[in-house]
Amino acid sequence: MPRIRLTVAYVGTRYQGWQIQGQGATIQGTIEDKLTRICGELVRVHGSGRTDSGVHALAQVAHFDVPESKAHIPWQQALNAMLPDDIAILDAVEVTEDFHARFSVRSKRYAYTLWTEPHFILPQRAPFVWAVRGLDFEAMDQAAQELAGTHDFAAFQNAGTEIKGTVRTLEPILRTQGQSPAEWVFRFQADGFLKQMVRNLMGLLAEAGRGGLGPGEVRAILEGCDRRKAPATAPARGLTLEEVVY
Amino acid sequence: MPRIRLTVAYVGTRYQGWQIQGQGATIQGTIEDKLTRICGELVRVHGSGRTDSGVHALAQVAHFDVPESKAHIPWQQALNAMLPDDIAILDAVEVTEDFHARFSVRSKRYAYTLWTEPHFILPQRAPFVWAVRGLDFEAMDQAAQELAGTHDFAAFQNAGTEIKGTVRTLEPILRTQGQSPAEWVFRFQADGFLKQMVRNLMGLLAEAGRGGLGPGEVRAILEGCDRRKAPATAPARGLTLEEVVY
Repeated sequence: MPRIRLTVAYVGTRYQGWQIQGQGATIQGTIEDKLTRICGELVRVHGSGRTDSGVHALAQVAHFDVPESKAHIPWQQALNAMLPDDIAILDAVEVTEDFHARFSVRSKRYAYTLWTEPHFILPQRAPFVWAVRGLDFEAMDQAAQELAGTHDFAAFQNAGTEIKGTVRTLEPILRTQGQSPAEWVFRFQADGFLKQMVRNLMGLLAEAGRGGLGPGEVRAILEGCDRRKAPATAPARGLTLEEVVY
Repeated sequence: MPRIRLTVAYVGTRYQGWQIQGQGATIQGTIEDKLTRICGELVRVHGSGRTDSGVHALAQVAHFDVPESKAHIPWQQALNAMLPDDIAILDAVEVTEDFHARFSVRSKRYAYTLWTEPHFILPQRAPFVWAVRGLDFEAMDQAAQELAGTHDFAAFQNAGTEIKGTVRTLEPILRTQGQSPAEWVFRFQADGFLKQMVRNLMGLLAEAGRGGLGPGEVRAILEGCDRRKAPATAPARGLTLEEVVY
């Protein structure tokens, strides 16, 4: 059976995340529904990993297998004609069977966007940012330096995952100006992320920016491997999956 | 009675335009509703002009008068706390009574954004662009040159307006790259715009870009002053009111 790799962008606001759940619309479910209609039989879509409810993507990757008789359908065109405006297929190519959207991942990159203008949030940017006030960005950069490297990130993993190992290698966290002067973007790249890890790391950075944590305390939280001792999770809306590397 | 000038940004997708109508949510209506709740009496909001259903704004301007007893309310903070995410007050300042949001306007600038990637529309940009294919941008620039200047723009005015004069002075139309390589932005600045004038001008430019109109034909349409002989109106979603100059 031919295997197709999809690159998918979405605005996650309306969805209960990537992965099919008991109820509520999901990105995976919406794409499977269209593929199943096109193929006349159930087609399963495998993503590179879950994204939480409300998280966005510029380039999520997924694959699916299709019956030989459907091999020559122009998948990008067919799916984009059926999908709602908030999901789009950026690319669809046939790959060999040794490609697997989840198991073949080498690293992923997420962007988290903060909105710092205190008196308003621009409506055009509101779905994509977390509005914060009075953060000390130098203190955040210092805290970020403590997090980079190969560590046990158990303190940044929310409950409900089946993953055994919690050691990951996080590249240096980069901070850049966003689309407007009010926006700062933090980029997180790692060989893998635990459940809600980026949002938990961002929550810690924000707490450091509020003056609540020095570098020594950041190290202690990381080494403590206890989620209950780490700061609160940052909201989903500021997070975008930017790239999956294979 | 003190007069307050508001600068308002909005994503127009969910609204039946700026101005209060028989039914459906409008930007003006939503702001009036919040002001009326704050003041305990009906407060009328006067915009610089209407925007159509689905059109966006980065800096619409409006004014309202408030009872002396309410003069010291922090309007921006009070309104932003009550308004939905897709409307925001960027600025609220007290002005003298000789300021009128509509009658004091000297010029306005609109941006119209085209999406040119033929195989998908990025979901993050979909609400703000018109997706087009295979346009000849040099031909559009040539057509744009014919439109700039002081002309009777009756051929670009849709029915249903009460305005008497249809002569306006349009500055040279500027075309620039947009947020992504797939986007081109056309900017229209004039001392005033007729009903749906920017969308009708954009519709003509698109037709020129498709090869359907040479510069001579553009001149003939302009001089003919007959809406029925001009190309179709471009969609609302690509249009944003960027600035009102006083």
